[in-house]
Amino acid sequence: MAIAKKTYRSGPYQEVFAQGTLVGDVLYISGQVGTDQEGNTPTSIAEQARVAYANARDVLAYFGAEMSNIVDETYFVTDMEELMENAEAVFGAREAAYGEPPDVCQTLVQVAALVTPELKIEIKCIAHL
Amino acid sequence: MAIAKKTYRSGPYQEVFAQGTLVGDVLYISGQVGTDQEGNTPTSIAEQARVAYANARDVLAYFGAEMSNIVDETYFVTDMEELMENAEAVFGAREAAYGEPPDVCQTLVQVAALVTPELKIEIKCIAHL
Amino acid sequence: MAIAKKTYRSGPYQEVFAQGTLVGDVLYISGQVGTDQEGNTPTSIAEQARVAYANARDVLAYFGAEMSNIVDETYFVTDMEELMENAEAVFGAREAAYGEPPDVCQTLVQVAALVTPELKIEIKCIAHL
Repeated sequence: MAIAKKTYRSGPYQEVFAQGTLVGDVLYISGQVGTDQEGNTPTSIAEQARVAYANARDVLAYFGAEMSNIVDETYFVTDMEELMENAEAVFGAREAAYGEPPDVCQTLVQVAALVTPELKIEIKCIAHL
Repeated sequence: MAIAKKTYRSGPYQEVFAQGTLVGDVLYISGQVGTDQEGNTPTSIAEQARVAYANARDVLAYFGAEMSNIVDETYFVTDMEELMENAEAVFGAREAAYGEPPDVCQTLVQVAALVTPELKIEIKCIAHL
Repeated sequence: MAIAKKTYRSGPYQEVFAQGTLVGDVLYISGQVGTDQEGNTPTSIAEQARVAYANARDVLAYFGAEMSNIVDETYFVTDMEELMENAEAVFGAREAAYGEPPDVCQTLVQVAALVTPELKIEIKCIAHL
């Protein structure tokens, strides 16, 4: 029983998975990290968050959506203390990405590692169109 | 393209994120922890699970929903052995919260840390209305 | 306000949670691990991935669905390096499970532990029917 899904692929892993999958009005977005289109990863967690949201916005834009379409976020960080010490900068980058205080759910956990050692945060979002 | 979402905010982080976001008939609930409305966190993982479910129920109630509306749970724990040694108490608290054996999916992983060091379990639920 | 949900239960934890919960056209699938119906868990991460997908397929089949109904995957692994060193075998097992290059999102994190020590990967999927 086939379903109608539309996917968006981009970046170095595009042969392995899609960055976004739209089915009906639900848009699943793969966990986004702080590596930009040129392959550069800033050092600070706040800058990584900024880039991760820029990447998420690219996925949303492909489907004609914007940040306000996001309904749920999961933050996977590698150092909770670092996040807390930089909370103002991280959540400032987040609010800048949304352009307003975001109206979304959030779950935040510290994992043991992300895909590469320089990554400090991965943000997984679900959006509805 | 704006969507109609309704959010519920509560607790110390209410300026940062919503505890629940309803879009269509899907209710995303932020990961709930064992800290009650007065800011108290019990020590045992089973008591923390009981409080986390009480917090989830508050979110559900705001949207006119109840525990049976939950369809999917993710447990993030900080010590799998502690969970297993207290499985009867934890899953007893869970069944008490649901009022019956819950008819839901569950995913269980041990993370490196939760938001504060005293937390032993965080429960992320998705409900449908 | 009761919802119509349909669940599939199987395996040693079937009294605790369902392996799949269908609500509307969304099918939530519990995180699947590399333990087969006889309780055997292969050692290699690629073999565990193969079994985890076989288990996911059993859940899908119960609801009349197939692998192409999956829209979102989350990989929880216990050793990112081991995954990367065996990436070809793991993603080969994945493509074999799908029968084609999968058209899905994916999020990948290393957790501190899974339910039992021999487990190296847990795969949580969401499908739409």
